[in-house]
Amino acid sequence: MTGSGVEAFQGAARKVAEALAADAVVRDEANRAPFAEVSALRDAGLLDALVPSGLGGQGRSWSDVLSAVRPIIRADASIGHVLTYHYLNSWRIRLNSRPGVIDELERASAANRWFWGGAGNPRDAALDLVPDGDGFRVTGRKFFATGAQVADRITASGTRVDTGEKLAIVIDGRAEGVTHHDDWDNLGQRLSASGSVSFDAVRVPDAQVLGTSGQAGAAFQPYPSLSILFFQLVLAHLHVGIAEGALATASEYVRTKVRPWATSGVELATEDPYLLEITGELVSQTAAADALTWRVTRQAEGAVARGWDLTEAERGELAVDIATAKVASTRAVNEVTSKVFELTGARATTRATGFDRFWRNARTITLHDPVVYKAREVGAYTLSGATPTPSNYS
Amino acid sequence: MTGSGVEAFQGAARKVAEALAADAVVRDEANRAPFAEVSALRDAGLLDALVPSGLGGQGRSWSDVLSAVRPIIRADASIGHVLTYHYLNSWRIRLNSRPGVIDELERASAANRWFWGGAGNPRDAALDLVPDGDGFRVTGRKFFATGAQVADRITASGTRVDTGEKLAIVIDGRAEGVTHHDDWDNLGQRLSASGSVSFDAVRVPDAQVLGTSGQAGAAFQPYPSLSILFFQLVLAHLHVGIAEGALATASEYVRTKVRPWATSGVELATEDPYLLEITGELVSQTAAADALTWRVTRQAEGAVARGWDLTEAERGELAVDIATAKVASTRAVNEVTSKVFELTGARATTRATGFDRFWRNARTITLHDPVVYKAREVGAYTLSGATPTPSNYS
Amino acid sequence: MTGSGVEAFQGAARKVAEALAADAVVRDEANRAPFAEVSALRDAGLLDALVPSGLGGQGRSWSDVLSAVRPIIRADASIGHVLTYHYLNSWRIRLNSRPGVIDELERASAANRWFWGGAGNPRDAALDLVPDGDGFRVTGRKFFATGAQVADRITASGTRVDTGEKLAIVIDGRAEGVTHHDDWDNLGQRLSASGSVSFDAVRVPDAQVLGTSGQAGAAFQPYPSLSILFFQLVLAHLHVGIAEGALATASEYVRTKVRPWATSGVELATEDPYLLEITGELVSQTAAADALTWRVTRQAEGAVARGWDLTEAERGELAVDIATAKVASTRAVNEVTSKVFELTGARATTRATGFDRFWRNARTITLHDPVVYKAREVGAYTLSGATPTPSNYS
Amino acid sequence: MTGSGVEAFQGAARKVAEALAADAVVRDEANRAPFAEVSALRDAGLLDALVPSGLGGQGRSWSDVLSAVRPIIRADASIGHVLTYHYLNSWRIRLNSRPGVIDELERASAANRWFWGGAGNPRDAALDLVPDGDGFRVTGRKFFATGAQVADRITASGTRVDTGEKLAIVIDGRAEGVTHHDDWDNLGQRLSASGSVSFDAVRVPDAQVLGTSGQAGAAFQPYPSLSILFFQLVLAHLHVGIAEGALATASEYVRTKVRPWATSGVELATEDPYLLEITGELVSQTAAADALTWRVTRQAEGAVARGWDLTEAERGELAVDIATAKVASTRAVNEVTSKVFELTGARATTRATGFDRFWRNARTITLHDPVVYKAREVGAYTLSGATPTPSNYS
Repeated sequence: MTGSGVEAFQGAARKVAEALAADAVVRDEANRAPFAEVSALRDAGLLDALVPSGLGGQGRSWSDVLSAVRPIIRADASIGHVLTYHYLNSWRIRLNSRPGVIDELERASAANRWFWGGAGNPRDAALDLVPDGDGFRVTGRKFFATGAQVADRITASGTRVDTGEKLAIVIDGRAEGVTHHDDWDNLGQRLSASGSVSFDAVRVPDAQVLGTSGQAGAAFQPYPSLSILFFQLVLAHLHVGIAEGALATASEYVRTKVRPWATSGVELATEDPYLLEITGELVSQTAAADALTWRVTRQAEGAVARGWDLTEAERGELAVDIATAKVASTRAVNEVTSKVFELTGARATTRATGFDRFWRNARTITLHDPVVYKAREVGAYTLSGATPTPSNYS
Repeated sequence: MTGSGVEAFQGAARKVAEALAADAVVRDEANRAPFAEVSALRDAGLLDALVPSGLGGQGRSWSDVLSAVRPIIRADASIGHVLTYHYLNSWRIRLNSRPGVIDELERASAANRWFWGGAGNPRDAALDLVPDGDGFRVTGRKFFATGAQVADRITASGTRVDTGEKLAIVIDGRAEGVTHHDDWDNLGQRLSASGSVSFDAVRVPDAQVLGTSGQAGAAFQPYPSLSILFFQLVLAHLHVGIAEGALATASEYVRTKVRPWATSGVELATEDPYLLEITGELVSQTAAADALTWRVTRQAEGAVARGWDLTEAERGELAVDIATAKVASTRAVNEVTSKVFELTGARATTRATGFDRFWRNARTITLHDPVVYKAREVGAYTLSGATPTPSNYS
Repeated sequence: MTGSGVEAFQGAARKVAEALAADAVVRDEANRAPFAEVSALRDAGLLDALVPSGLGGQGRSWSDVLSAVRPIIRADASIGHVLTYHYLNSWRIRLNSRPGVIDELERASAANRWFWGGAGNPRDAALDLVPDGDGFRVTGRKFFATGAQVADRITASGTRVDTGEKLAIVIDGRAEGVTHHDDWDNLGQRLSASGSVSFDAVRVPDAQVLGTSGQAGAAFQPYPSLSILFFQLVLAHLHVGIAEGALATASEYVRTKVRPWATSGVELATEDPYLLEITGELVSQTAAADALTWRVTRQAEGAVARGWDLTEAERGELAVDIATAKVASTRAVNEVTSKVFELTGARATTRATGFDRFWRNARTITLHDPVVYKAREVGAYTLSGATPTPSNYS
Repeated sequence: MTGSGVEAFQGAARKVAEALAADAVVRDEANRAPFAEVSALRDAGLLDALVPSGLGGQGRSWSDVLSAVRPIIRADASIGHVLTYHYLNSWRIRLNSRPGVIDELERASAANRWFWGGAGNPRDAALDLVPDGDGFRVTGRKFFATGAQVADRITASGTRVDTGEKLAIVIDGRAEGVTHHDDWDNLGQRLSASGSVSFDAVRVPDAQVLGTSGQAGAAFQPYPSLSILFFQLVLAHLHVGIAEGALATASEYVRTKVRPWATSGVELATEDPYLLEITGELVSQTAAADALTWRVTRQAEGAVARGWDLTEAERGELAVDIATAKVASTRAVNEVTSKVFELTGARATTRATGFDRFWRNARTITLHDPVVYKAREVGAYTLSGATPTPSNYS
């Protein structure tokens, strides 16, 4: 990266996006864990963007980071996925109760340019924590552990087997006892390293114990539980970015490859009244989801700024607002990524074009948790003022 | 209005909104031209909001004005319609070439608390302008002349019968020769005074001649033609406000009147899984259209700030962005205002509830110009970078 | 009616439809109970179509009757509503256990050309039946009593105050103690006489007692409960007919009144690519709902033919099939009747056209019972083979 | 096949469907030309179903054949595609002017259990026919030649280089000069053998010349051009069958694999209110498209029965009716095959399930020709009574 301003950062991200676009179809097909891609992100100087400058990082805002990352999502949503999850996992350690430990981890993260993954799928059994010296040994298995396979550090939580207390922890991704199963061969988000990871008595020293998890459950507090909401927020950005990527790719194809339909009465496909209409409808729907996503992003940043003063009501209303973005962006991306084929036509169904990856990515990522339950939460707030019960998904 | 800050202004508008809400259904049914409502707007001190403070007005921004007006749109979209059109018609005289004339008109508008209407439907024949002394005599008829019937001043344009030049003019709404036909009995926007107006050799002195119209056609210039785009922008605000009004009204009804369906298994209608879902979907779709509408509003304000330096390309891109808001808000408001009946149920179809006014307003206002041609413009820009040919609708 | 074949019957119905179409808008506005219209139906010889020829009627099939009635639904869905409900209410007495009583009532119905209504809204309290001589006295009030106000005979049920037994009964619509409240002033289906009716110790002689009601509840039997399913089936026909009426009316308007949009590049509105597309989409959606409605109509006729041998499983599967038609036709009619305005344009929103009556009728009739619970029943059968619990709505 | 009745035929087809279902995912992935599958169809006795019994075939109706084939489409839409196209290509030779030649070909087809493909993509250049002895030599290349690669006989047409006359012909799929490029590696319908085929001076003896092609163009006649309409009709059956297959597969998965969502409040996924609703909506939409498809199938059979007496108007109205089925089924299958993932949830995105094949098949087959132009044709007929200009797509 040349320079330290936001333009330099955006420029660096854009270059990565261009490189990723060049072979996205081939890499998607190959389905290899994204070690090379993560190296490229590291080399581009993107990894420490959110680490405070006082701790050696770039000290950027979530808005700036998400704005810079958007072209990467458009070009390769899998890598957009691991990268935004890296930001989430490295950042959310901050929403815990041990500032000294957190600062040291952030400092080390910047210094070593660590890449972060997570192992927190709530639908799996909790990880076990057995006290061991100044820390713990962690054991268990988590599926959908996005980024863990290619991560230096893994953000997780576990339950103390002696006290039942739930602790937020950080695990060394290369430590002894960590097994990455390389078992992610899914429809979409294929390069997101979202397979399963096992921990067999892996050492977690005190310097990696973040304190009681306040994200959800008995020890719930509004501020730590922002991590849940930021995952939902990032999903909305991923949805919109995928829709934008599909539209850009399909538009380029229409411009350069599509012949006008015989009875269209026009010389160029770009003049076909129906291709114009369909494109305009899909672009407008995507723009609306995008505008809403950015609006709630700013609200989310406001909530972070409140810190430990954040109230349950404030947190609850933010949850509802983010849910509206989740709903709108889910509808948009599934519609757009399927309907773009009506722009490109039959010849574009050859696998060489790889156009289906947008729909495959959309269809996979939008199933993170059922969107209809997000609609339900928005409806409950509207009809009776109720905010969602804090949980691992809301 | 107590005080001069934006809160005072918003408070004044909110009070008007509350009063309008109280008898909106009855007034809608009665279908009388909104003389009383315009008086209330005047008495509330809302009319000179956009007039520069140097000319005796409040000097507010479009954003502040549109934000304050939103509750009025929700409560009574007809009055929201005439009020926003008042702002448009009083403001757009500024986008002309005779600053002295314009300043005097703005000063008089503030001093006299004039209400403004328009008579510009492009699908009717142009008004004729016959030179007469220092000014003209104007003759002709215009349909869809929103607000003209209740206006002190009417913004219009006419064609000089001697030279063919198209001039922007202002007409005294009470002048001799002006006939308001009181012929607006339409499905929706019933109190928007959108009937026809005739001019029979009505005197237009030089002090009401704004100069060559640069809005569209041969003398087109980007800055004056912003008026066209602001009409489109205001339509998007009207769409979103109507959707919000329908949702608020239906939600209140569900909360207070609806019994849960027999097989729903819940005690309260507000707990019915499907009512929650439908509400959440509609609220999310509306929120997305709203966020996009506000985003383009800020862009539009930026374009105004460019003044006569505004380029064709800048104006063209703004047109496309506003078109996305038009498309998204049109889809949202038509969907929302019809579907809310699935929240309120069969008993709510009694005419006493007046719930259908939201759909009637939506269905009427969204036909201002065909939304599919807006989608087409967005598509053209996306597929080939073309901006819309400036016209009376784009 | 000239002749007795199905063509004669269809011809007679078509003539009524044409007469109704001529002043449908005016009558809808006037909102008077349809006494004159019912007379016209009687004079046209339509009322005894379903009565067996052996009992003095025309002995027609449901298919022939519903096919003949369709043009009436298209022209005036309110009258289509009371007429199809007349057929339902006069026919469903047959699904009871006292053949002698039933035959006599059918014979009298044909001889006197009775018009039938119903008073069975299940969401109101049950009617009380007090034993009185050879019969009962009936007391209570029912809302949504479609057709009752203009009926000679009203099909109903009541609960014996002494034994709690639920009996199917017939009430003389003009008997002493019957009060028609003339309180139906709703959004749509305005001429369907769907207001409330009160019974104050109205005499129900033994000759009007049909026996224990087997329609739902404890004494449920598959055959009598077909009446519930036929109401649902008839609703599907009403939905499709309203959509067809809207399309026919809008198409005629496009053909004769609509000017092409300025930038459409075509000479006639009927050549506008978007009007062609929208029309084609709406017609196709309507045709699909129509084809499904007719398919389930044939299935329903098959179930009737099984008589008291009809099994619970057969009845349950028919309920599910009819539910698919309810869902598809509800979606179609609400979409079509709102979207047709995009064909006709802004000028067509003048109330003189009355185009909104199609949407108002659709929006009202489709709320008979919540369509989402029908979708749920279809889903339950698909996912687990469960048929709906027999009730007053399924 | 045991027995000759329709049940035996349907039973034989159902057995093939079951066998195809067992390894459909694996075969789809492997993307091999379906030689083995075609052998299975032949061995099951399915190939001569439409050949008149007087010529050695089974003499079945289109309805019986399409009904029997439906389970095959559900199980493996690629094979459903080649099989229905086999029927189309072997049957449409009958719509030509040389009865003697046709009879002999049909007789040979039944006797040798020939499988038929086509090479008629109208968007490619026409094949050249050079007179040679009693017949011709054919040269050229066709893309999207569904089934040709695995066919004994290929139905095609070519243009005489000497006279410009367009002739319908039959080509031996194994003849010298025929090259199958095995270049079909597309998103969906992967086993439909829809790659390209080249002909290099391939011999077409007089016994394979069907006469002047009356399908479209200058020599158009209504009866021969039914072949075009039957392709469209078969596409509608393929669409509906794919939707049905997706729903059956997803339902089975919900029943057996899906855990209820944490906040659903139910014990089984099959009781989740939203899964029930979504399933019911999709099933209803599919049922409507199916009912319409069968209705137009019966109309199409009626048109065939008219033979050479078929008028242009009759043919035109059938074209419009089939277009409604195309539109409705296209909307249904694209919606259903994408949305079923909301039933099955995130875990079902693993590629092992192969659930995406339904969407991939739908997305590919529905692009055969642009559905919006079909909507346009329906709209044109509705708005102005115009039937489509006969062409290779309508």
